Amino acid sequence: MNLRLENIHSALKQRGLDALLVSLPANISYLIESLSRDAYLLVSGKENIYFTDSRYTEEAGIFLKDNAKLKISNGFVFKGIAEAALNLGLKKVGFEERYLPFAEFAKIKEYAGEKFSLIPTHSIVEDRRQLKDTQEVLNLKKAARITFLALEHIKQFLVPGVKEVEIVAELERFIRYQGGRGSAFDIIVASGPNSSQPHHLSGQRRLKDNEPVLIDLGVDYQGYKSDLTRVLFLGKINFLVRKVYDIVLKAQELAIKRIRPGAEIAEIDRVAREFIIAAGYGDCFTHNLGHGFGLEVHEAPHISGREASAVKPGMTFTVEPGIYLPGKFGIRIEDMVLITTKGCEVISGARHK
Amino acid sequence: MNLRLENIHSALKQRGLDALLVSLPANISYLIESLSRDAYLLVSGKENIYFTDSRYTEEAGIFLKDNAKLKISNGFVFKGIAEAALNLGLKKVGFEERYLPFAEFAKIKEYAGEKFSLIPTHSIVEDRRQLKDTQEVLNLKKAARITFLALEHIKQFLVPGVKEVEIVAELERFIRYQGGRGSAFDIIVASGPNSSQPHHLSGQRRLKDNEPVLIDLGVDYQGYKSDLTRVLFLGKINFLVRKVYDIVLKAQELAIKRIRPGAEIAEIDRVAREFIIAAGYGDCFTHNLGHGFGLEVHEAPHISGREASAVKPGMTFTVEPGIYLPGKFGIRIEDMVLITTKGCEVISGARHK
Repeated sequence: MNLRLENIHSALKQRGLDALLVSLPANISYLIESLSRDAYLLVSGKENIYFTDSRYTEEAGIFLKDNAKLKISNGFVFKGIAEAALNLGLKKVGFEERYLPFAEFAKIKEYAGEKFSLIPTHSIVEDRRQLKDTQEVLNLKKAARITFLALEHIKQFLVPGVKEVEIVAELERFIRYQGGRGSAFDIIVASGPNSSQPHHLSGQRRLKDNEPVLIDLGVDYQGYKSDLTRVLFLGKINFLVRKVYDIVLKAQELAIKRIRPGAEIAEIDRVAREFIIAAGYGDCFTHNLGHGFGLEVHEAPHISGREASAVKPGMTFTVEPGIYLPGKFGIRIEDMVLITTKGCEVISGARHK
Repeated sequence: MNLRLENIHSALKQRGLDALLVSLPANISYLIESLSRDAYLLVSGKENIYFTDSRYTEEAGIFLKDNAKLKISNGFVFKGIAEAALNLGLKKVGFEERYLPFAEFAKIKEYAGEKFSLIPTHSIVEDRRQLKDTQEVLNLKKAARITFLALEHIKQFLVPGVKEVEIVAELERFIRYQGGRGSAFDIIVASGPNSSQPHHLSGQRRLKDNEPVLIDLGVDYQGYKSDLTRVLFLGKINFLVRKVYDIVLKAQELAIKRIRPGAEIAEIDRVAREFIIAAGYGDCFTHNLGHGFGLEVHEAPHISGREASAVKPGMTFTVEPGIYLPGKFGIRIEDMVLITTKGCEVISGARHK
């Protein structure tokens, strides 16, 4: 059994739980060290059992190794989970309350009756996933590298008349040829006024001269996700756009300077936000400063003004201040940092174009 | 307010519910007739309220029209939902038990106290989504058309030495240039022995001469998803592969012939399955015969041997028998059908290569 599973066993013991039913795919993938889909993982001190359906029999048989027993349960997975808990004599079974749908909870509970209890838990696996190990850092740096190369590659395509979706298409193609599994999320190519929507759906709009183009893209490399945003420009940059760009960039620089082990997370958000407020655009910075990334593109920690906990070595998160002027344009600059024992390393490749 | 929302109002009245909290993105997209993400929709006889966060303020303001009121609740959405229910004087609020995570249920319940009750429901919106209207059929046919064109386009790339992921890359690019939002799911390109895994993750393997290549791809057009599988061949086809191919194809033809309004769904699965069993490959057909498709690539109805309900006009589902010989190869042939008032129309473009 691998170290990650052993750590969960210890965490369960500390909490007085006999087992944890893991249902978030990223958590399962982390624990079995392979990409998992359509599965549940019961982790207990006695035995780990991986439940999936017959579409995955062959691949699961290979990647599970001695980490977990394979159980194929087509259509009766919740009954299977309850029976396994009973057979193993488990009394207190934790479940991931943020990811298990109510109906699945209710179904397992029905089979459990009075024989074992289901205890809501959260963040048991996610907390461990916050601190990346060497292999994970390598995967994330590779994902970041492909992201950077994709961005360099796409610059030659940014000419007036090209559609947003065509830029997306070329980025997707390039990422796969570079060894990525694909993009980590729907790539955002937001041209001109579309850039004022932080999560624009790339569409049929054609790029125009003298406009900004916001590109937010991520790469999935071996399940590990990167996330990078740049605003590029066609032709001349008008005065207001340049001014706002410089404010966002400065806010990001100030925040990154503050990042080191022990720093309060809320304080990092605050540094960037206060600079933007002072510049008169506080109302236009409408989201958190950043988020962790790894097996999920958004994961713990949340880099928000409400997060009182401290930065720790091994964390990886984005720093992405933005200013959005509805109907006009938006600027977001997003980089990825890795927290080291001494400070913070920007792993985006180049900081800005 | 649109007809779809009005139909839900009627359904709620019939069930004695004051409101329904919709959380499945596809259900919300269906009801507001626009692509929705990161949102909750409270549908009640009195008022419909759409909850999202500030990243979507601008786009939601446009697409909601008079279908729902927009409420931006960054970080406090469950409190917002409970407050809205109290303000509207709702007493019985249904929720989607299959999609609402336990923790979200618990949080709303905590705010609700004794003031309103949360009632588990399922399939209220999904049942309606099973029967596609004219506009939906047009979108699905367009998605199917792009899928077919992509498959035709890719044939020239199928030469020995090309990697699976490179085929995926080219398909993705093509789909977007044709006006698709992208692929509807991770495209499966499974070459040679990889084809024996029904849900293979396309990888670095290179295509070889005299091997089958299974391609399972779908297109997202305006949120509507297609799903098509073909097995193509490089060089010569060996005897066993040809034999299995013919069995799968015949099983599919028999099933499709049986599809008409009023036919029992289980019976359609049975026809294909019994043919494959009689041919000696029953153990190798390890999944259901098919599934509905629309705003989700897998949705109701499930075309399974356990589904006693009847086929109805307006349904769209896949028919995809498969035979998988682990370590050797797999054959799956998947087509999309639309149920008409008289029978069934195969909307995959060409039936088989």
